[in-house]
Amino acid sequence: MVNSLRKIKEVRLIERIAGRFKVKDRSVIVSIGDDAAVVRGPQRKYLIFTSDMLIESVHFKKSEDYQKVGYKAMAVSISDIAAMGGIPKYALISVGLPKKNVDRIAGQLFTGIESCAKKFGIEVVGGDTNRSDKLVIDVFAVGEVEPDKVVLRSTAQSGDHIFVSGPLGGSFRGKHLSFTPRVMESRFLVKNFKVTSMIDLSDGLGMDLNRICDASGVGALIFENKIPKSRGVFKTEAALFDGEDFELLFTLSKEDALRFFHMMDKRKADMRFYQIGRITDLFRGVKMVTRDGKVKDVSCDGFKHFQKT
Amino acid sequence: MVNSLRKIKEVRLIERIAGRFKVKDRSVIVSIGDDAAVVRGPQRKYLIFTSDMLIESVHFKKSEDYQKVGYKAMAVSISDIAAMGGIPKYALISVGLPKKNVDRIAGQLFTGIESCAKKFGIEVVGGDTNRSDKLVIDVFAVGEVEPDKVVLRSTAQSGDHIFVSGPLGGSFRGKHLSFTPRVMESRFLVKNFKVTSMIDLSDGLGMDLNRICDASGVGALIFENKIPKSRGVFKTEAALFDGEDFELLFTLSKEDALRFFHMMDKRKADMRFYQIGRITDLFRGVKMVTRDGKVKDVSCDGFKHFQKT
Repeated sequence: MVNSLRKIKEVRLIERIAGRFKVKDRSVIVSIGDDAAVVRGPQRKYLIFTSDMLIESVHFKKSEDYQKVGYKAMAVSISDIAAMGGIPKYALISVGLPKKNVDRIAGQLFTGIESCAKKFGIEVVGGDTNRSDKLVIDVFAVGEVEPDKVVLRSTAQSGDHIFVSGPLGGSFRGKHLSFTPRVMESRFLVKNFKVTSMIDLSDGLGMDLNRICDASGVGALIFENKIPKSRGVFKTEAALFDGEDFELLFTLSKEDALRFFHMMDKRKADMRFYQIGRITDLFRGVKMVTRDGKVKDVSCDGFKHFQKT
Repeated sequence: MVNSLRKIKEVRLIERIAGRFKVKDRSVIVSIGDDAAVVRGPQRKYLIFTSDMLIESVHFKKSEDYQKVGYKAMAVSISDIAAMGGIPKYALISVGLPKKNVDRIAGQLFTGIESCAKKFGIEVVGGDTNRSDKLVIDVFAVGEVEPDKVVLRSTAQSGDHIFVSGPLGGSFRGKHLSFTPRVMESRFLVKNFKVTSMIDLSDGLGMDLNRICDASGVGALIFENKIPKSRGVFKTEAALFDGEDFELLFTLSKEDALRFFHMMDKRKADMRFYQIGRITDLFRGVKMVTRDGKVKDVSCDGFKHFQKT
């Protein structure tokens, strides 16, 4: 699902773009480099802005069910807002539609968009329609969050416990088109705990945990036997590198983690969370304790590139 | 520049999309159907949201100067915000970039985006980068406006004077890539007058004045000899139907129009406005008094389709 070398190139490209756009305005709380942007909003809340583009033959096949593509396009942006601790509110949809079968394709696409928007109480307030050889859909979503509940990637601390909100890997078999953005889970977390960092797993645990570590200037030690795998996924590599899980990856302080375990014991299981490791300042990047007790470096794009180090 | 039949199809498509997304939330002031969406914002202001997508070989040639394409992508969204009476504040940029020459293309594109963002004091706070066969760029812009200054398409009234902010036609010769969004003009207008309706001229005076008339339930009578033409434009058809002028088209009450003429007489000419006709309730749609004193119907896509009526 994810071409890792391409992803790394993309990261460098984003860094160069971010270098151009140094923020000057004090109303901007978070700019390029997190799951979404955050600015001061109405009634002492912050606004969250995010955009996600899906392109035919890059993100989905020409023969794909366009209703699912529409659902996914909206869900990906909602997932970004959840990763900041926020609630989705509004969306704008820009589309490039092929000339052939435009009514059928637009009908299916917007049926999917509508179903996802309704599920999460989002108002679709605008957008732009265009002709295009290949189907392109770009969703801009606007969310809101209380200033004390916004969660960044860059604030994980040594000693924090690391969690994910669901089993990982094999998303390309279908989940990547039909996942439920973890808004409920995110809101439960930010209302009850001081979540020290959070990201949504779009590019795989390997890459996204490295993102938290890089942004926070820390390391992460995870345990192979604790990584939850999706049904039908047997290899740890798949859980680490397949991508598009759209689960939450987050950290809690040791004290909050104890309260969290206690609270989860008492709750009926409407949400699932898995503790997979700890944040540390003993090293940078991500290391995994394997089932046979060895320690492996987990890079953005697999184990192999780092075995020599 | 504008394929009118395609445009009319697009309008019907947008109407169908708008039909799906009936707004329920009271925080939404303006939804699909105006230049941009308006929602309640911070500090008793409204927020304006708009998105505009440009696609290679639809909106620009593969061989185009990508710096200009970047500038235009940002400028089109700013123009939408100006058309609502607002000030641009933030932008997110979603791009699909071809694999070949990605660094050069992205460099040029973002240089153009940056120059336009700086010119208008916009903070670029996020976006999404993707691979794509053809270059796609979608700009999501956020603006703000005082609640008493927001201007809609749907509030023109019989007796109002109709104005445009600059000469029209022939934009495809270059202006469409380098125009100045009329933020200064818009803010001058909303600060000094009760602007009764406004739109930015993206699809040509013929189509966009019809949009104001349709939304407001009124008619417009314009005068051929009063329509300002761009240098090198000799035919009225070009001024009416070429499109992509990105000038403001707006209306003022008779009383405000008199004050406006008086004020403009005293001002040095840093802004230009042209009075081109009047709003009426005697008929619907747009009619033009020609140089030889005849009256023609002005449709979205030319004169001819309506000559038989």
